[in-house]
Parts: sequence; structure tokens; C-alpha cells
Amino acid sequence: MIQIKVCASSANLGPGFDTLGVGLSLYNIFKVEQSNQLWIEGCPPEFNNENNLFYIGYQTVCKALNVPDKCHVIFDCHIPISRGLGSSANLISAGALAANYLHGSILSKDEIFRICVDIEGHPDNIAPCIYGGLTTAFNERNVQALSLDISPNFYFTAIIPDYKTDTKECRKALPAEVPLRDAVYNISHTVALTYALKVGDRELLRDACHDLLHQPYRKNLIKDYDIIADTCFKNQACAFMISGSGPTCMVISNFSNFSEAIQDEIKGAYRIIDLSVDYKGYEITELS
Amino acid sequence: MIQIKVCASSANLGPGFDTLGVGLSLYNIFKVEQSNQLWIEGCPPEFNNENNLFYIGYQTVCKALNVPDKCHVIFDCHIPISRGLGSSANLISAGALAANYLHGSILSKDEIFRICVDIEGHPDNIAPCIYGGLTTAFNERNVQALSLDISPNFYFTAIIPDYKTDTKECRKALPAEVPLRDAVYNISHTVALTYALKVGDRELLRDACHDLLHQPYRKNLIKDYDIIADTCFKNQACAFMISGSGPTCMVISNFSNFSEAIQDEIKGAYRIIDLSVDYKGYEITELS
Repeated sequence: MIQIKVCASSANLGPGFDTLGVGLSLYNIFKVEQSNQLWIEGCPPEFNNENNLFYIGYQTVCKALNVPDKCHVIFDCHIPISRGLGSSANLISAGALAANYLHGSILSKDEIFRICVDIEGHPDNIAPCIYGGLTTAFNERNVQALSLDISPNFYFTAIIPDYKTDTKECRKALPAEVPLRDAVYNISHTVALTYALKVGDRELLRDACHDLLHQPYRKNLIKDYDIIADTCFKNQACAFMISGSGPTCMVISNFSNFSEAIQDEIKGAYRIIDLSVDYKGYEITELS
Repeated sequence: MIQIKVCASSANLGPGFDTLGVGLSLYNIFKVEQSNQLWIEGCPPEFNNENNLFYIGYQTVCKALNVPDKCHVIFDCHIPISRGLGSSANLISAGALAANYLHGSILSKDEIFRICVDIEGHPDNIAPCIYGGLTTAFNERNVQALSLDISPNFYFTAIIPDYKTDTKECRKALPAEVPLRDAVYNISHTVALTYALKVGDRELLRDACHDLLHQPYRKNLIKDYDIIADTCFKNQACAFMISGSGPTCMVISNFSNFSEAIQDEIKGAYRIIDLSVDYKGYEITELS
């Protein structure tokens, strides 16, 4: 039996829509072994079947390797579902990585990445699970991911509401066409954002993190978005953005304990967690 | 009297529309001194007046400094006009930099940059003249430029036709709105392009240099665009793109003498020049 620990991720980072993602120190942990039948422990009964995303990742890699595809897995999950913290990408990546490891680690990270993106469709959530840290993805010939530098001065704080958003519903909130000048705005801001994250420049980060392509359309799906943003900026947040397609909001600050500053000021049912960047993405341990 | 030498630039680098620009080793050189009357030597008579872009740059800085704004300048220009190599940005920057130097270098580079962008409107052409090398620009609160790393393995080759394009006409060729997925394509490719340029990865550069926001609309304004591109790729170009809004096409390759490979294959009236990255932007010398 092995244990695989895979990180959460925040995608659509600021203007880097469908492009930038970052691995964060919140984890799902899975104990996995090959088995003659599918057996999933530790998850709600409705997910204990062949449509479980972990199992889909697992069996897709098994099919690619032409090996038996059943497994016994014990879930110990801490990433909330449908909150914009990459739990789907996490499950798929975990299954795929586990299957590859249990069958001789034949596939490369790049191959596993492409398999997972084919299943999940969000390279900016998959890439941090496979490569760790700050990643950028793009699609040319095939989907590719690159690891970018990120300053250790930046910390992330997730503000997680008690309601879910439907990713498909969030997609629908977006227009099919956008002004060319908004596209240029996001291109230029995304390059500036990668620069600010690399060098650790908080003023630049704040300027660069503005976005015109998704957050203006989606923020109405998130209760009290502007009020929460104001509270965070008043408490020296460098940047505030929707994580993935929400409803979690993500703060970037210079404080590892930023949650303490806002905990009492943000009213309502939120879980506020301080996170740091996860640089590894995943970790596999052999269990005795 | 001083001499100021300012570089040419290639803007709209691949997918980095209105964002990425690079300074190149082709120069306009100006000898400048304060004078009681405007006197421009070495340029066609129709440009010898107050509408000369050098003079507009010069007098805008003089007004900002509240000092007399006339000058005597001798042009020695090598950057072709209206070809997409940043000659307008060059003239404005040269005038602004000269005025600042002759009046005590009071303004910072960032201040001169903003003044020039106010006049010219193309930060991706102005930034390489002021800061040198590979630059990215974005507009938040005010226009800002950042210097990016570029590998010494890459060389540029300009293919300059004998006809001009009108920048305003080229703007009109662009749609007001673009598909959101094309915007995402360019965001993700631009980040990958800055990565490829930094690390010197030719395969990645080739993949990342694709663009959906301006070149598909403008390439029809450039004669034989596809034929010339094919010739360049056949001869191991890493990337091929429109420089600025054209009609010059720019090749990025690993060869400092790439022009020799294509000189005989490209038919028609083209000037083909091998260029390297200019890392300084401008240089001022006191003349005795």
C-alpha cells in the first residue's frame, strides 16, 4: 500500500484566466493499493463508484499502461468540494499518479499531466498538483505546463464560504466575446503579475492583479464580494481575487497569519485558512 | 553639444500584443544643443518644423521642466520610417531624453517613459528605447514598464519591404471584440513566450509565439507573408512574426547571420538585416 498526498490549488490567478495556478498547503491524502475490485473508503456513499474522479484518473492511467485498473483506496480529504480550490483536479491527479507509481512509474510527469487535463479540462488546476508551486499552462500541439518562480514573501489566505458554486454555471456567466482592449489589458497584466510574484513586489502585485475577463462577470455570484475585498485591502492585503471559479476568495499578502486580521471583521459563515505555497504538488510514501 | 543614440524596437512581439517590445541594434543618432530657434538638419524638408516627433518629445520635456524649448539638432537616422521598427517612438524618446539631459537630468526614466507614452501611445515601442532589452508594459494607475530577461542565444532578423503601412490603417484591420478563448490563448502564450525568451528554449519559443489577436487580421496587409514565413521556418527560424504593425517581419533564430540563409530565397524588394538585442536603449555622449 502507498500513501499519496496531493495539494489544493488556486487557478485563474488574477488576470491569468485559464493560465496561472498555484499549489497550496491544503491536502487530500489517499492510501492506495491494487485490488481485484473497486473499493473506496472514507468518502460519502454517493461517490463510492466508478464515477469517482480519483478512480477515473486511476483507471485512465491503467488503460494507458494496459494493466488491471481496480484499486482499494482510503480517502482522507481536507479540500472542500466545489469551492474553487481544485478538488476535482486533485482527485484526478491523485488517482493518475497513484496508478502510475503502483505500476512501475512508467509515465513521465508531462504524460500524466496531459492525461489528467484530457479528463478534467483545467490545466491551471492540474499543473500545480503535478509540478507544485506556481505554474502556467498553454495549449499548442499539446497542453504544456511551465513552473514559474514565486517569492517566499507571499502568503495566501483562502476565504471559503459555506455554499457551493457550479463550475458550469460560472462558465455560463462569461461572455463568448470580449473587447480586444480587455484582452490586451489581461495579457499585459498577467505578464506583470508573473514578474511581481517572482520578485516579491507587493505594490506591483496589487497593480498587476486586476482582471477584466472573468472576475467582473463572476463576482456577482459571490455574496459580499466587494465588502470582503475592502476588508482585506484595509488590512494590507496585496491582492484579492476569486479562486478558480469561486466562491472561495483568495488573498495574497505578506503575512503568514493574515486570517487573524480579518477573522472578526468578516461576518457570515466563512472558513478562513492561511496557506503557503506548496512547491512539490504531490508526495508518495510506501506504507509498510 | 551632445550626441544621443537611440535603438529601434520591435513591438507586439508574437502574442504579446501592445505589451512586449524589444530593443534592437539599429539606431538613430542625433547631435543636439540648446538654441534660440528650432533648427533641424539632416531630415527631409517636410519634417523640418515644429511637428517633428523629435521636437515634440524635446519640447514636452522642456515644458514639464519649465525651461526654454528650442534646439538645434542634426539627424543621422538609420531606422526606416513607417515600417514597424519603432521610428516614431525612437524620435520622441530621443527628443525627450536629450531635453532632460541638457537641462540637468531632473526627470527619472520612469517619468520620461510616461511622458513619451502620453505622446506616442505605444508603450511597447517606447519602453525599449528608454530601458533597453526586452520589456513589458501595462497600464494601471499609470503606464508602467518592466525589464524582462532574454537569453543571449536569440538573434533577430528584420525583413523590411520597400512599401509602408499606415499604423492607423493597421489598427482598423483589428476587430473591436474577440472570442474569449482567443484572449485566453494569447494570455497563456505570452507568459510561455516570456519564459522561452528567458531560458533560450527554441522549441518552446516556436510553440509560444503563436498569436490569435492581431496577426491573423493584419497578415493580409503584408505581401507574401505566408511564403516568407515558410522560407524562414525551412531555414530553422524559431519564430516569425509581424514587427509592430508591419510591414516588417521579424525572425527570431539562433543564428547571428540568419539573413545569409534566406537572402537568395526571398524574392522581391526587401532589405534583410541581422540584429541583436540592444540592452541599453539609448546612450548619451558629450561632444567637445
